[in-house]
Amino acid sequence: MTIEIDPKKCVDEAEGIAHLYDEIPPVVKKLAASCNRHECLGHVGSIPIPTHEAVIEIIHQARRILFPGYFTQTSINPANLEYFLGQETTELFENLAKQVVLAIQHECFLARQSCTKCEKQGHEKAIKFIETLPEINRMLAKDIQAALDGDPAAKGHDEVIFSYPGLLAVSIYRMAHELHNLKVPVIPRIMTEHAHSLTGIDIHPGATIGQSFFIDHGTGVVIGETTLIGDRVRLYQGVTLGALSLTRDAGQRYRDIKRHPTIEDDVIIYANSTILGGETTIGARSVIGGNIWVTESVPADTKVLLKKPELIYSGNGSTVK
Amino acid sequence: MTIEIDPKKCVDEAEGIAHLYDEIPPVVKKLAASCNRHECLGHVGSIPIPTHEAVIEIIHQARRILFPGYFTQTSINPANLEYFLGQETTELFENLAKQVVLAIQHECFLARQSCTKCEKQGHEKAIKFIETLPEINRMLAKDIQAALDGDPAAKGHDEVIFSYPGLLAVSIYRMAHELHNLKVPVIPRIMTEHAHSLTGIDIHPGATIGQSFFIDHGTGVVIGETTLIGDRVRLYQGVTLGALSLTRDAGQRYRDIKRHPTIEDDVIIYANSTILGGETTIGARSVIGGNIWVTESVPADTKVLLKKPELIYSGNGSTVK
Amino acid sequence: MTIEIDPKKCVDEAEGIAHLYDEIPPVVKKLAASCNRHECLGHVGSIPIPTHEAVIEIIHQARRILFPGYFTQTSINPANLEYFLGQETTELFENLAKQVVLAIQHECFLARQSCTKCEKQGHEKAIKFIETLPEINRMLAKDIQAALDGDPAAKGHDEVIFSYPGLLAVSIYRMAHELHNLKVPVIPRIMTEHAHSLTGIDIHPGATIGQSFFIDHGTGVVIGETTLIGDRVRLYQGVTLGALSLTRDAGQRYRDIKRHPTIEDDVIIYANSTILGGETTIGARSVIGGNIWVTESVPADTKVLLKKPELIYSGNGSTVK
Repeated sequence: MTIEIDPKKCVDEAEGIAHLYDEIPPVVKKLAASCNRHECLGHVGSIPIPTHEAVIEIIHQARRILFPGYFTQTSINPANLEYFLGQETTELFENLAKQVVLAIQHECFLARQSCTKCEKQGHEKAIKFIETLPEINRMLAKDIQAALDGDPAAKGHDEVIFSYPGLLAVSIYRMAHELHNLKVPVIPRIMTEHAHSLTGIDIHPGATIGQSFFIDHGTGVVIGETTLIGDRVRLYQGVTLGALSLTRDAGQRYRDIKRHPTIEDDVIIYANSTILGGETTIGARSVIGGNIWVTESVPADTKVLLKKPELIYSGNGSTVK
Repeated sequence: MTIEIDPKKCVDEAEGIAHLYDEIPPVVKKLAASCNRHECLGHVGSIPIPTHEAVIEIIHQARRILFPGYFTQTSINPANLEYFLGQETTELFENLAKQVVLAIQHECFLARQSCTKCEKQGHEKAIKFIETLPEINRMLAKDIQAALDGDPAAKGHDEVIFSYPGLLAVSIYRMAHELHNLKVPVIPRIMTEHAHSLTGIDIHPGATIGQSFFIDHGTGVVIGETTLIGDRVRLYQGVTLGALSLTRDAGQRYRDIKRHPTIEDDVIIYANSTILGGETTIGARSVIGGNIWVTESVPADTKVLLKKPELIYSGNGSTVK
Repeated sequence: MTIEIDPKKCVDEAEGIAHLYDEIPPVVKKLAASCNRHECLGHVGSIPIPTHEAVIEIIHQARRILFPGYFTQTSINPANLEYFLGQETTELFENLAKQVVLAIQHECFLARQSCTKCEKQGHEKAIKFIETLPEINRMLAKDIQAALDGDPAAKGHDEVIFSYPGLLAVSIYRMAHELHNLKVPVIPRIMTEHAHSLTGIDIHPGATIGQSFFIDHGTGVVIGETTLIGDRVRLYQGVTLGALSLTRDAGQRYRDIKRHPTIEDDVIIYANSTILGGETTIGARSVIGGNIWVTESVPADTKVLLKKPELIYSGNGSTVK
């Protein structure tokens, strides 16, 4: 492939590139046409829609309010705390209201409805969310304590707030869940999927989760839309609280039915276990060992372990066991 | 540890810090020397290489073209749609061509070859990629429909496009796969590893995947380089389509051999199941339950479930079983 | 919901929004009060603390030094290599020292101690870290070679450095581990959790890991605080090296005890296997198959596989078995 450089060749090469631009217009025509054909692919209309960037900024802002001083460069002190919270909360209200209005207008647009009250509705939902912040705050204080109680490696509140993916995912879920309860479209799911992307923990905003909740490590955790979780529950990485096997047309048939399990107070579920089905209940204070597949209810105060699986040893190890 | 402040001490302390800078030059010398010794660690030469930032911007740009109006702040309407697509597509071509040229030049540099045609080759590969966009578009419309058909929690096209990690990973895979087919070096893998980082879904750009493909939740999914997947296949979180146990020197011995399974049309594989081996085929319309380990072929129209594992119940639960 | 537009209504609507701002002050009062009550939620004091952004920038800078030319836009050549390394290393020292000082000051603040030596201590720890860079460099060269030896899909050093999540996580772990050894607070864990977020690989900075270490795919890997790993070990996705079932008050009872396993030289552990317990040792050269749960030691030179689980086939497949 060693080629000598030759001035004529350089010109040829430049010409060889220029004509490639001619290939672009037919591609654009096809893309534009398909955009009309497959409506699903394009959001072509006169209405702007919520953006990921704006929703993520809302998450950051809410975390600055919920954990003052942890995620800011400026230092917060008792003298300026209320000013800081006041300004951030007002801005959060305005930024959130803007995105909620866009989300509602977008839904009206899809439903081909006119939309004169969207502005007001969006602001009302945003202020209702703001009013839940003290309660979210109270819940998160208990979630942090649950991490400290459950993880021997936890060095203190700071480490949990700064670096625990479980707390990050649960913080974002608790906000998204409030917006979900306020029937805000699209935004709650963008929030929890942002948490999923950051942490590998996938909690549907529709799930209901009690206080003092702790997820350790967390990668691979899935908590489905209709899951109910009590107080003081602890989960480890890879736990799925999911739906039982679905048919091919599941999307149509099982919408709006309780498809995911109920986990009562004080349950612990170890790594990589899977609990499936809307009628499956894990009773209070029960412990589910690791790597277990559960599709039936477990009574209260029960410990469930996998019977030691038969392993095949070969090599030196065949002499033992 | 309570120490009184004393001006002399402050000076001492400043001096205590200043001399630390003397430690830096010997470290730098060692690093520079090791850079020459272990060639693998440094890319020291006169040729710049593709950057992650540029490749990620290419992904964003392609998504703006494939889903017009979803990932832009400005609103797109029927009047400006073609202008928008035209401009974005031209820019995508130019940005991609630039990175592909760098990737090819880098490969020539590694092979110590001269590189006069790299420029032209890079542009040609880039335009060939642009020409695949309408087909990628068509495939993604079917992937979105597959998500709506398969997931009862899916509220509509918008939610799938905005927030489903499965669609994000498959979108990026479909682009990377086209670049892989065009034998573009390095860039396809940077793309799919970006998707892996965002979603926990690790699809090798070399894998072949049919239409109407849906991955739900997705964290922990691994789809190996030589996997073949038919149409209308659905996977859940934690599914591995991988290679059978490899020897220690696997890197040398098994390169370029089909090491990963074949999944025929209309197969469903539930959470955390593992299908291994290049000669393993899951026949059309078969269903693989969750948490299963498969290393042999399964015929068409078969349902494979794990025999209920024996669980040990203790506590209250020991009375039931 | 189709409503006619009416100027009076618009005014009503604007008024309907304005009064919502009245709801904010009581929320702020509650948040400020809870910040004093639950000390854990706020970092309210006069001392600024390390920021995620700064720590992440330190990671980027260290990677530019460890892999010169790979993560920079400017090209590095033998003539400017030492200048490049000199400048980047000096800046890294200064940026790191600044954050380490903040971390130490923050710890003093929590312990209500005065802090005149924090500045000096922080700089000393930072320079000690800088001095470990050549050794980290040497280790990473071996980690890259281990990836090439272990993965048939690896195309070359470049691909491993550019896109392998395993190498990214191990690079960040190796830095964080040195800072952990230097008893730097908070920062090591922020680093490894950043790696966890990017790769799904969760390595505690306290773990001890030998040379030539390779993690393939990696999503879901968990390596606990007191794990010991020898040389030339290879892990696949979803492997947990964790603690045995913990009691509810585990956080208090098991702190500072060896809770995680020992993995000797040349061990391979396949996907989704779980090794638990501080007294569990996997002997040298042993191979643990996929999907296995191990809570007892395995001698050297042993291969452990799951006895083929009983599967239930139905449909066409029921005729085979």
